[in-house]
Amino acid sequence: MTPGRLSGVGVGPGDPELLTLKALRLIQEADVIAYPVAKRGDGVALSAARPHLRPDQQLLPLVYPITASPEADLPSYPEVMRAFYDRSADEIASLLDAGRNVCVLCEGDPFFYGSFIYWHARLNDRYETTVTPGVSSVMAGPVALGRPLCLRKDTVTVIPGTLPPEELTRRLAAADAAVVMKLGRTFGKVRAALEAAGALDRAFYVERASQAGERTMRAAEVDPASVPYFSIVVVPSRETP
Amino acid sequence: MTPGRLSGVGVGPGDPELLTLKALRLIQEADVIAYPVAKRGDGVALSAARPHLRPDQQLLPLVYPITASPEADLPSYPEVMRAFYDRSADEIASLLDAGRNVCVLCEGDPFFYGSFIYWHARLNDRYETTVTPGVSSVMAGPVALGRPLCLRKDTVTVIPGTLPPEELTRRLAAADAAVVMKLGRTFGKVRAALEAAGALDRAFYVERASQAGERTMRAAEVDPASVPYFSIVVVPSRETP
Repeated sequence: MTPGRLSGVGVGPGDPELLTLKALRLIQEADVIAYPVAKRGDGVALSAARPHLRPDQQLLPLVYPITASPEADLPSYPEVMRAFYDRSADEIASLLDAGRNVCVLCEGDPFFYGSFIYWHARLNDRYETTVTPGVSSVMAGPVALGRPLCLRKDTVTVIPGTLPPEELTRRLAAADAAVVMKLGRTFGKVRAALEAAGALDRAFYVERASQAGERTMRAAEVDPASVPYFSIVVVPSRETP
Repeated sequence: MTPGRLSGVGVGPGDPELLTLKALRLIQEADVIAYPVAKRGDGVALSAARPHLRPDQQLLPLVYPITASPEADLPSYPEVMRAFYDRSADEIASLLDAGRNVCVLCEGDPFFYGSFIYWHARLNDRYETTVTPGVSSVMAGPVALGRPLCLRKDTVTVIPGTLPPEELTRRLAAADAAVVMKLGRTFGKVRAALEAAGALDRAFYVERASQAGERTMRAAEVDPASVPYFSIVVVPSRETP
């Protein structure tokens, strides 16, 4: 039997209208729609794709074993995640071996901090694979704010909020424009680093960019207890157009 | 008369299939399609949108007065460009005043080094304006290479090739993963900076990502004389999935 084709498809920041035409085509051509998800709910990737699915398509949730601290801080975290990626890659491989085309949905872009990176590394050599880029929250966040991110000779630094406080401060102080991702429980630390770097007064917070419930405010005004993981901080350029 | 609506639409890196559904809708709803362009040819933005246009839509080329060195190095450059943005914003405003909806096409993403930033600043307060994010070459370049850009705790730095040599070197040396944009005549300097930063051996060159004629190779193997402005260098993560 001819094996199925694997595709990793960026579905954008959440608005189903921010899928690309290519993402839509690959989703529609797939027999199986695989999607990473936390224990509860559809997750952002499936929610973005859901309006475009057909009832006859098989859904394959790839359920993260760990999605939040404190578990993510345990020494066993890398091993637990590796076992998860191995096991879920095997599930995808069985479907491909059965001749079914599998489309893995990726919030934002597959190769930009995407979980697809781990499935790609495990399956790319064995199956015909296409990767389709998507709109990242790096692009959607500034649009939600109505503020350009960068122009002219600006550098832009994208920084995971999970870095140590002193590295966060150093990176933020060196950046012309910046986006901080992977927030949630890290927000208090990120806020302190923004302040130490002298960037708090020009930093904005964006929650659920492009989705229903999108919220933006100055980073200084955010309640750290209310910050979901998939929100970002945007520090736009100091330049004026 | 009710003024028309202005939209700035990211059309992605060049493949017409990498338009989002929202970009497609706004293009189709527009009476006038405005697009920045060099003196010759359609330019990347119009080429990406062209398959989706209707014959009855008015095309408004916004022709850059300066597109390449040595002119771009002259002291008069900022003034010439300011006059261009003023004049072309007036052209767009006349159409909006006449009740026509104007869609400005933007290669990649409008707020990520986009020329739309300058028209937005001049028109946003006076007209109903929507901005639609797009797929950037920061996402399309790694996909063209088949290599993830960043994972885990990587920072990503996006660097204009127009920076001075020592700043290029410093930024590249500090980055976990990097994308260098605005190449062309700057490539020789960028290559030297990659070498000085110890990043040349893991740096890749991507030309016309997602378009017909897409080319990728190791940055070390590129002929500097052959590099178009809209090509990029990608320095992927050192991490392995």
